[in-house]
Amino acid sequence: MILIGERINAGFKDIGRAIRERAKGPIQEWARRQADCGADYLDLNIGAVSKDPRDMAWLVQVVQEAVPTPIAVDSTQPEVLRAGLEALDGRPALVNSTTAEEEKLRKIIPLAVEHGASLIGVVSDERGSPQDVARRVENAAMIFAAATEAGLTPDRIFLDPILMPIRFMQDQAPKVLEAIREFTLLSDPPPHISVGLSNICSGAKERGLLTRTFLVMALAVGLDTAICDVLDERLRAAVATAELILNREIYSDEYLKVWALRRGGGR
Amino acid sequence: MILIGERINAGFKDIGRAIRERAKGPIQEWARRQADCGADYLDLNIGAVSKDPRDMAWLVQVVQEAVPTPIAVDSTQPEVLRAGLEALDGRPALVNSTTAEEEKLRKIIPLAVEHGASLIGVVSDERGSPQDVARRVENAAMIFAAATEAGLTPDRIFLDPILMPIRFMQDQAPKVLEAIREFTLLSDPPPHISVGLSNICSGAKERGLLTRTFLVMALAVGLDTAICDVLDERLRAAVATAELILNREIYSDEYLKVWALRRGGGR
Repeated sequence: MILIGERINAGFKDIGRAIRERAKGPIQEWARRQADCGADYLDLNIGAVSKDPRDMAWLVQVVQEAVPTPIAVDSTQPEVLRAGLEALDGRPALVNSTTAEEEKLRKIIPLAVEHGASLIGVVSDERGSPQDVARRVENAAMIFAAATEAGLTPDRIFLDPILMPIRFMQDQAPKVLEAIREFTLLSDPPPHISVGLSNICSGAKERGLLTRTFLVMALAVGLDTAICDVLDERLRAAVATAELILNREIYSDEYLKVWALRRGGGR
Repeated sequence: MILIGERINAGFKDIGRAIRERAKGPIQEWARRQADCGADYLDLNIGAVSKDPRDMAWLVQVVQEAVPTPIAVDSTQPEVLRAGLEALDGRPALVNSTTAEEEKLRKIIPLAVEHGASLIGVVSDERGSPQDVARRVENAAMIFAAATEAGLTPDRIFLDPILMPIRFMQDQAPKVLEAIREFTLLSDPPPHISVGLSNICSGAKERGLLTRTFLVMALAVGLDTAICDVLDERLRAAVATAELILNREIYSDEYLKVWALRRGGGR
């Protein structure tokens, strides 16, 4: 599966401060740590402290200096996304994200096309986040159609069904699982399907258990990508085990070690 | 979900010896331990040491003395199944199991009907265990049709897709997951779907991780029953968490404790 490291987000205090103070240290440290744990992409998000596109450009440059890992430029603002994409050194990238809102589709899809990037489409719309399966699927289909029409192939489209905190919206998790399964039917081969995994345990006590249990359940129904805490060793072990069960990794008694090595670390 | 305690099986040395020596102690101890951990049924199997129906009748009586838990009478021999069923004191019971073989269907389904018991149907046939999804589904449909025709309602039918050791037959696990999903389409409401869970980790090193990861993946696609090690605390925590994610348990910060208490123990 594709693991996107969530940690370089201004919502975390140390990263917020580092962005405000233009301090490279903590950012590059988190870039290395996540890369070492096998992150396929590093998500970069300045939203909690800045709307200035120059801050995103700086952040992309700082991370690129530290690691060769692909980058997910994460913002709700097209101008911030553009600045991040323009700062890229040619490595693969993800635009995170468009929604199904018409204006967002019109402005953000061309950014992905222009920069040869892949695109995450979150299934919210003018009315906000869907609470049911049907509107999740409708919005996913709308994003998928618009992205395809603009020239993105299914392997460059990531659909996000919007995971909610189980503590506050308990009925949503099974709906997200059902939506994931339905997203897999949108095309053959299917688009990627991604969640913001840590949402599920927001405010909850058994955070690790909830997170890794939901993740493997979602992998069973078609999820293949998550923005998550790649430093969580037990989460990585659960992923390796699920990939083995799905016959995507080869069994050996030491499959956990093999998986970590193939991912370039787990150091 | 429905948890069937696997431990009173003559394949375990202590149980084999206790059956040969007619020693109640170890058997009643395992009956209590599994009941305390929330087993919904206790599976009783004498196959590794005896084909004598009287041994099964004795075993059923011994377990009934110790706990009020429903019993799964487990044998490939119709006469052994019959002896176990006749020894029941009126508590709910499971016949474990028929296959899709004609002779088995003809002899074993009437036993379940006669004794008001539910029935596990394992999807093997004259050719052995299926290696693909299609024959699993075919055999499941054959068992389901024969059981229904004999008067068993879907809630009294448990279909078992046959889980294989991941170490030796790695391609089977995703096929079992797909078969589970297809079994859910056999009727509305669907029959129960059950696996012999410990099979998956046979000969493997990461037994606990493999077992609980497979179980929650299977729960995500429609499994609702497992014959398993109910004493495995981390397995029980994974089940409680999956049931929460599927919105079948109510969230509280202490949901693990609530789940254990509702199950009558976890002591």
